[in-house]
Amino acid sequence: VAELGEFGVIDRINRGRRLTGAVAVGPGDDAAVLAAPDARVVVTTDMLVEGRHFRLDWSSPRDIGRKAIAQNGADVAAMGARPTGYVVALGCPGETDLAVVDGLADGMWHEAQRSGAGIVGGDLVQSPQLVVSVTALGDLDGHAPVLRSGAGPGDVVAVAGRLGWSAAGMVALESGATVWADLVEAHCAPEPPYAAAISASRAGASAMSDVSDGLLADLGHIATASGVAIDVARAAVHDPRITEAARALGADPDTLVLTGGEDHALVATFPDGSVVPDGWRPIGRVRAAGDAGPVVTVDGSPWTGGTGWQSFGQ
Amino acid sequence: VAELGEFGVIDRINRGRRLTGAVAVGPGDDAAVLAAPDARVVVTTDMLVEGRHFRLDWSSPRDIGRKAIAQNGADVAAMGARPTGYVVALGCPGETDLAVVDGLADGMWHEAQRSGAGIVGGDLVQSPQLVVSVTALGDLDGHAPVLRSGAGPGDVVAVAGRLGWSAAGMVALESGATVWADLVEAHCAPEPPYAAAISASRAGASAMSDVSDGLLADLGHIATASGVAIDVARAAVHDPRITEAARALGADPDTLVLTGGEDHALVATFPDGSVVPDGWRPIGRVRAAGDAGPVVTVDGSPWTGGTGWQSFGQ
Repeated sequence: VAELGEFGVIDRINRGRRLTGAVAVGPGDDAAVLAAPDARVVVTTDMLVEGRHFRLDWSSPRDIGRKAIAQNGADVAAMGARPTGYVVALGCPGETDLAVVDGLADGMWHEAQRSGAGIVGGDLVQSPQLVVSVTALGDLDGHAPVLRSGAGPGDVVAVAGRLGWSAAGMVALESGATVWADLVEAHCAPEPPYAAAISASRAGASAMSDVSDGLLADLGHIATASGVAIDVARAAVHDPRITEAARALGADPDTLVLTGGEDHALVATFPDGSVVPDGWRPIGRVRAAGDAGPVVTVDGSPWTGGTGWQSFGQ
Repeated sequence: VAELGEFGVIDRINRGRRLTGAVAVGPGDDAAVLAAPDARVVVTTDMLVEGRHFRLDWSSPRDIGRKAIAQNGADVAAMGARPTGYVVALGCPGETDLAVVDGLADGMWHEAQRSGAGIVGGDLVQSPQLVVSVTALGDLDGHAPVLRSGAGPGDVVAVAGRLGWSAAGMVALESGATVWADLVEAHCAPEPPYAAAISASRAGASAMSDVSDGLLADLGHIATASGVAIDVARAAVHDPRITEAARALGADPDTLVLTGGEDHALVATFPDGSVVPDGWRPIGRVRAAGDAGPVVTVDGSPWTGGTGWQSFGQ
């Protein structure tokens, strides 16, 4: 990387990429200019640090790039918005192989295009280890943002996407097992259900979040923000593939599904009586908060198993 | 930082901060929502890495925060846009003193408010050294973005803000001299002239860039993008304070002014005959590119002194 220099590497990353119609000014000027037809812009940012959020011996550069975009795109989607563009700041050692940067860029472009957008700008600097910082922008297309604070008693809780697959994939990687390729893939390169987020917004979802900290933790954020209690039906989140893998790997399937992080699935609440759109499956109910406050329960009881990803630095 | 945890630190950083009217949804949800009245949004990102872009023994956390925002705000301004909000991803070791995070946050909010905006979201992760990644958003208020590619022969070249002060401040820091506090301050916490950028856009500036790589390097970007040659009058960029400091510190004043980076001043071109707005001073002329191509000259000759900040990783 040092040999080619910042501008050379950036040229290489951008060469031949197709920018969408939403981009008025692409990479190469002081800043990019993106369409924001709604006259509001949704924005979120996440940083991934080598050794903390990914390991180059577990994930390919391409998968790391895909995941970095996916986790930001999922946050935009969780507002009920359509991703419109990403900017990427990349730190890496000067001796980094260009193949690593090429792989990262390929993965980022792959996932950005899955979400309907492109990478419109960035920064490349030297740092002791790989650091990838992504900011995603999105457009609400005239609809109100779907916040965490809108859930009301009686609402149906539903999920789009897989739960526990990323955590199970990590357990598989740690165990050295090689037969759970689908779970490892889900860990290394989760694929958020972007279209389902738009469907939820249009179907009148009252609250929504992506599942990054684990289902119970993210439902906890909704419960707290909305001042409600939420109960999850354990049978509704049962996943035979997770049960199979958990048995083989010596893990608890309920813990994986209920508290595993980084799936970047979506969880939303829908007013009672509304039609839960395609791609969503009901998993529980919102209730008025009782004396215990805005708690999340499983089959009516507090969850006493393992916990999710709440510690500093994940 | 590890003791308080991610959510605790983020609460602490955001507590008591006033968000502007441009913020529809602030920190705390999956993403923020900002007003984008122009229906386009300007976006840019920069990453600063400890030991590479700043040193905690030279700069206070507050100054690092100010600079991180300033260099992104300057890029938004250089498009002729008004900053509307910033998102910040921060990586730091778990044992980082909370005073460092508080200082960074104070500095960021100080400079964000100088630019007319606030910090609307972010991420906090663990990393081996301090890494600050900022993304700035801006609004064009109905005006065309001022690109690097619009300069034409006959245009006047003008500058707003100081040139060479940051580089002179770094020389002073390296020398251990303590009498150049104004220059050291300019290095540690540059203050981009945001209002001058808007004036330039409204006065019909044909091209604009912030001066981050050094005047000649950044004019080189404009010359290349516009397919023109640019000549700078050495006398017009003379700065008595830089000459005084350079003499005392054994540096060359012209090299500091012409190639010193990180001042985050602005350089723009204005069509011949237009009134250069307040806060701007003419320093040269745009000419048709000759056989030598889109070159930048000083008093008609190529610059043969030192160079700016073009190496990978700055």
